[in-house]
Order: sequence, then C-alpha cells, then structure tokens
Amino acid sequence: MEKIILTEEILRPKFLIGRCGENIISFGSGQPDLPPPKEVFSVSPDYSNFRYGIVEGDEKLRKILSEQYPASTSDNFVITNGASEALDLSLRVIARNGDKTKNKVLMLKPYYYSYPHLVKFSGMEPVYTKSVKGRIDFDDFKEKVKDCKAVLINSPSNPTGRIESVDTLKKLEKLTEELGAYVLSDEVYKDLIYERQNYLIKGPRVVTINSFSKTFCMCGQRIGYLWSSDKNLVGNIINMKSHTSMNTNMLGQKMALEAMKVPKSFIDSQVEIWKQRRDLIYTGLTELGLEVWKPEGAFYILPRIENPKQFVIDMYNKYDVVTYPGEWFGAPDRVRFSYALDEEKIKEGLRRVGRYLKER
Amino acid sequence: MEKIILTEEILRPKFLIGRCGENIISFGSGQPDLPPPKEVFSVSPDYSNFRYGIVEGDEKLRKILSEQYPASTSDNFVITNGASEALDLSLRVIARNGDKTKNKVLMLKPYYYSYPHLVKFSGMEPVYTKSVKGRIDFDDFKEKVKDCKAVLINSPSNPTGRIESVDTLKKLEKLTEELGAYVLSDEVYKDLIYERQNYLIKGPRVVTINSFSKTFCMCGQRIGYLWSSDKNLVGNIINMKSHTSMNTNMLGQKMALEAMKVPKSFIDSQVEIWKQRRDLIYTGLTELGLEVWKPEGAFYILPRIENPKQFVIDMYNKYDVVTYPGEWFGAPDRVRFSYALDEEKIKEGLRRVGRYLKER
Repeated sequence: MEKIILTEEILRPKFLIGRCGENIISFGSGQPDLPPPKEVFSVSPDYSNFRYGIVEGDEKLRKILSEQYPASTSDNFVITNGASEALDLSLRVIARNGDKTKNKVLMLKPYYYSYPHLVKFSGMEPVYTKSVKGRIDFDDFKEKVKDCKAVLINSPSNPTGRIESVDTLKKLEKLTEELGAYVLSDEVYKDLIYERQNYLIKGPRVVTINSFSKTFCMCGQRIGYLWSSDKNLVGNIINMKSHTSMNTNMLGQKMALEAMKVPKSFIDSQVEIWKQRRDLIYTGLTELGLEVWKPEGAFYILPRIENPKQFVIDMYNKYDVVTYPGEWFGAPDRVRFSYALDEEKIKEGLRRVGRYLKER
Repeated sequence: MEKIILTEEILRPKFLIGRCGENIISFGSGQPDLPPPKEVFSVSPDYSNFRYGIVEGDEKLRKILSEQYPASTSDNFVITNGASEALDLSLRVIARNGDKTKNKVLMLKPYYYSYPHLVKFSGMEPVYTKSVKGRIDFDDFKEKVKDCKAVLINSPSNPTGRIESVDTLKKLEKLTEELGAYVLSDEVYKDLIYERQNYLIKGPRVVTINSFSKTFCMCGQRIGYLWSSDKNLVGNIINMKSHTSMNTNMLGQKMALEAMKVPKSFIDSQVEIWKQRRDLIYTGLTELGLEVWKPEGAFYILPRIENPKQFVIDMYNKYDVVTYPGEWFGAPDRVRFSYALDEEKIKEGLRRVGRYLKER
C-alpha cells in the first residue's frame, strides 16, 4: 500500500512522546501560543448549533467577511474546515474543470508542507519555482507558469516568514490573468505582517484562502474560508462540499463571528508581540552566525544550517529543543523555527542552539 | 465549467425560501427533530479546544468508541467531519491503493444521494446492484461485485429505511473477503433499528462509517468517525486528513464524548419514538393505497407514487408539504418522506397527501 506522508502537525505529538516536560523548548508547532479573544469563550451551545446549517456557511459570518473584500457579497465566500479544506476543495474543483490538457500547479520552493500532497491528491502535478531569499524570482516564475493550470501563492509564507513585494504580486496578477491560470492565494497569515498592509490579489480566477486559526488563535476549532469573484467556481466548491463534509461545525462558526466583532486593536496588540519576538529570534540567530532571511510576517524563520537533519535530532535529544527539518518544506539545507512561544523561552532556546553550534 | 450537483441538504433551505411558516409540513430534511442529550449542552469551551488536536481524534473519544467494537483499540478509529468526510477520505485512499486495474464501486440502488458523487470525486466509477423491495438481491450482487474494488453498504438505508438480513451480510462478508474487495459499511443509523440488533460486518478490508449526528441529534456539529481493522488503511486515512482538514473540531469532539457517556436509555427512548412514528406513517401511506416497503430502521420511507416529480411540486406548491423526489436517490418512480417530525404533523401531512391523491 502506498504510504502517504504525514504533516508536521500530526508528527508533533508523536515526536514528543515521553519527552514532554518543563525543560522542552519547542520551536516546532505552527500555532499561536497567545489566547483567542475572550469573547469567543463566552459562546455556549444552543439548539440551533445542533441542526444542519447551510453548506456555504453562516450568512452573518460571510456577510461580515465580505466587508473586508472589495466588491463582494456573502455569495463570494465558503466557510470551511480550516484553510486546509479550502485548499483541498479548490484544487479538487479546479482539477475537474477548465483546460483538461493542463494539470500542473506551480508553487514556490520552500513551500508549506501540505501543498505538494494536496496537489497530488487532486490528480494534478506540483511544479516548483525557485526562490531568491525566500521570495519569487519573477523571471523563473514567468517561464514556469506558461503551461500551468494554477499557481499557489503563500505570502506571508510558512516556512520562511517572507512576503512578496506588491510589485511582484501585481505582475503575477496580470500574467496569470492573461494566461487564464487560477491563482490560489493562501493568506492565512495576512493579519500578521510587520512591513506593510496585506495586498489582496485580484482577478477573475483568483481564490483567496483564509482562516481564523492564526489571527484569532483558534486552530483547534478549524474555521477557515475561501473567497473568489468567480461565482461558478464558488458554486461548484459548495456543491462538492455538500457531499464531502456538508456544513462546517456550527459552534465554531459562531465563535468566528464573535471573533470578527472584536476591535482591530486585538490584532494590533498581538502583531506587536509577534514583531518583538521576530526581532529577538532574527537578531539571535544572526548573532550566532547563521544565514537567515528576515521574516516579514507569520511566525517562522528558516536559517541555513550545516547538516540540518543532525541538527534537528541532536537539538532534540541532547538539548531538549524541538525544531523541524527544512526538507519537510522543500528546503533541505535549512531548519524551521516557529517563534510562537514567549520571549524567555526563545532566549533560552537560542542559548542552547549557541551551545550546540559551539560544541559541534 | 462542469456542474457538480448538490445534495438534498443544501437544497433544503433554498427549496423553502419564502415559504417557511407554521403551515409547512416538512417530510424533507434528514435530521432528527429530537434534542441532543442535555449533557452536551453543558460543554463549554476552554483553552485546550483552541489548540490543534491530533488528527485521528481525541484519545478518550476513540477509546470509549473502541469498547463498542470487538478486538479494537483507539488505533482503529479516526474522528471525522461527519460521516461524509469519513466516506470521502476512505474512498480517496482506496482509489490510490491496491489493485490499480480496478476502479468500480458497487452500491445498491436506491442509494444515499451523495454516494455516486463521492465515488466519482475519488476517481472511481459507481456501479449499481438492483434491489428487491429495497434490499440486496444477492444473486445480482454476486455477479456485479466480481470486478469491483469496493462495495458500499448502507443498512439501515437512507432513503428506504430497510435493513439487510444478517444472512445477506454474512454472505457478503465472505464473498468480499474472498475477492479482496473493500467494504465501506455506512452505519450512521445503526442505533435506530426497530427489528434486531445492528450486525457489525467484519473482515480485513472492512471500513465502518459512523456518526454522532443521528443517534445523538447533533448533525450541525459534524462529528463522525470511521473504524477499520486494517491499520495500514487507517494510517493512510489519518495522513491524508492531516493535509486535507487536520483535526476535527475540538469542541464537537468534547460534546461527542459527553454524549457517549449518556446511559443507553437515552437511545432506547428515542428509538421508541421513531418506531411509533414509523408505524404511523407506514400505516397511513398503506391505507392511502400506496406501495411501500416497511422501514426497519432510520426515519425514511420511500413510497411508489405515480408521476413522482409532479407529486413533489404539487404537494409543495398547493399543500405546503415538503417531500424529496426519489430520482435524487436513484429511485425515479418513488418519493422520499423523512418522518423526523412529531406525530401531529405526520398525521396532518398524511391528510394532505390523501386529499391530493383523491383530487388528482
């Protein structure tokens, strides 16, 4: 039987079996350690949460989301079981539609762990464009995109924390529209950008993938969504979802609605914390002599490290520090650090990395 | 763009737009009108519900489920976004594995609306075995199963309410094992059987699909699960899910765990209600002169009705009664009634059907 490789998130607990404890510093897991807005805790179940809801998602939730997207109504949205399901459904529907002679999906390397798998599950083929310091090399992109059915964009990126320049995104918008290629823009870290406002990619074949998980620290409730101006595509995604999972859980949607009503200052104050942590880990790793790309969003950093697999194993076994090998993300010469942990722990983790590098 | 057809459940609210009101009698929707156990209402969110959980589902929930399945541990289970996702994942993983020259999935006609779609989405081809009064004709089954990769069993059945005899299920167990065919046994109505205890199909390639939706009246929370003795298959399903949707929502799983602790008398008393309603609608439709198969489980009945599409439209427009055309379920000469509504409404609905049949 063909073995399907599992993600970082399932590996996480198994990786740590028998090694949990106060002394562990985890740069592993890709989820905020900060709490959700207190308003979502006040949500309690009522009778309506136990009834089927409409497949596309709660009307109020989609309406409030539409205020963030120009020229949109609730009909441009589908609420999903996290961004993962939004990606999976979009790819599956795109694979079944349009030009059947094309089946390639272009993505930047390094990439989010699940992308190649999701593309393959949909029956399409992942192809890669190389990065320059974690960002798209537009000349290479231009060459590779020609025979692609779709492209996957992830800015800010997991695992690099880099964002694409607005100039690149605008050129990409224009070129993909000319070619008739779909753009899947995974923007789950759109609210966690340190350098500029998020730039929403536009176009007739754009699907934006988003989530409440990172912005509102509610990963476990699995509420994501997708947006597209192509209502045919949205309709087909809803119809596919009506067979594959039906409505997204009702109570989680109610929580997401409460989260959306929280003042923007909630997000701003969290971004401030993320930025301080970014500065701390960026400076720390740089001072240890490691080559790093400065993260501009999200909460990951991907230093170049000699013999990275050994680094991950030794840091875990000898120094109680969890990191993820870059090869999971298509970056075999690097190691991913998530900095979703408090400053004291980041500092202690950096000290241990320093000791290891000195000793080896 | 290819149009994907939508399910009954998404049709339901659209079907009723502008026609909701006290006077509507709905034999449409396939969800219990009874309340969930009061214990699930007492579940309130805590911090842990907002963190990622393991993809296969809460250990406590899988453990308590394993007590219902012989020779099982929590490792035989995956908690999913309803039975729908369990079916979708199982089909997708089966399509990618085993004998690649086989791609047919056998199912009984009439079938649950989503089955042919899910089989096609997975890249396989639905094929049909004919029923005798809503049950498997084993001679026809035996002939058709030979070149199938998998079979889909649904006993009790939506839309017929019929159950397969234990003898048929045992023969089917033996034959599919000899042939090496997978058996997907959708048992979401296993606790709503009026005639006998549920019979659990066994075998090395059996996947049982189940749900908390019908037994515990919690459709909207989307908690389902699958069981298999094939741990390789379970592993591959978990790994695929780790990319396609990650963990199932944590709060819903907590509710399901509370539901599992409720004494069996909760289910027994609900089955008593369903049985009374079954008797009422079966007798009522029979007395109206309609040919029906007596439901033995679930809460559906599928009478044969002349010109069924016109019946559905007229009953809705002229008599304020919602029913679903049998053609959605592969039974174009029939109409599906769900009897998930209280006795007074069933009686009034039957009176209106009687008036219509007399007048036409």
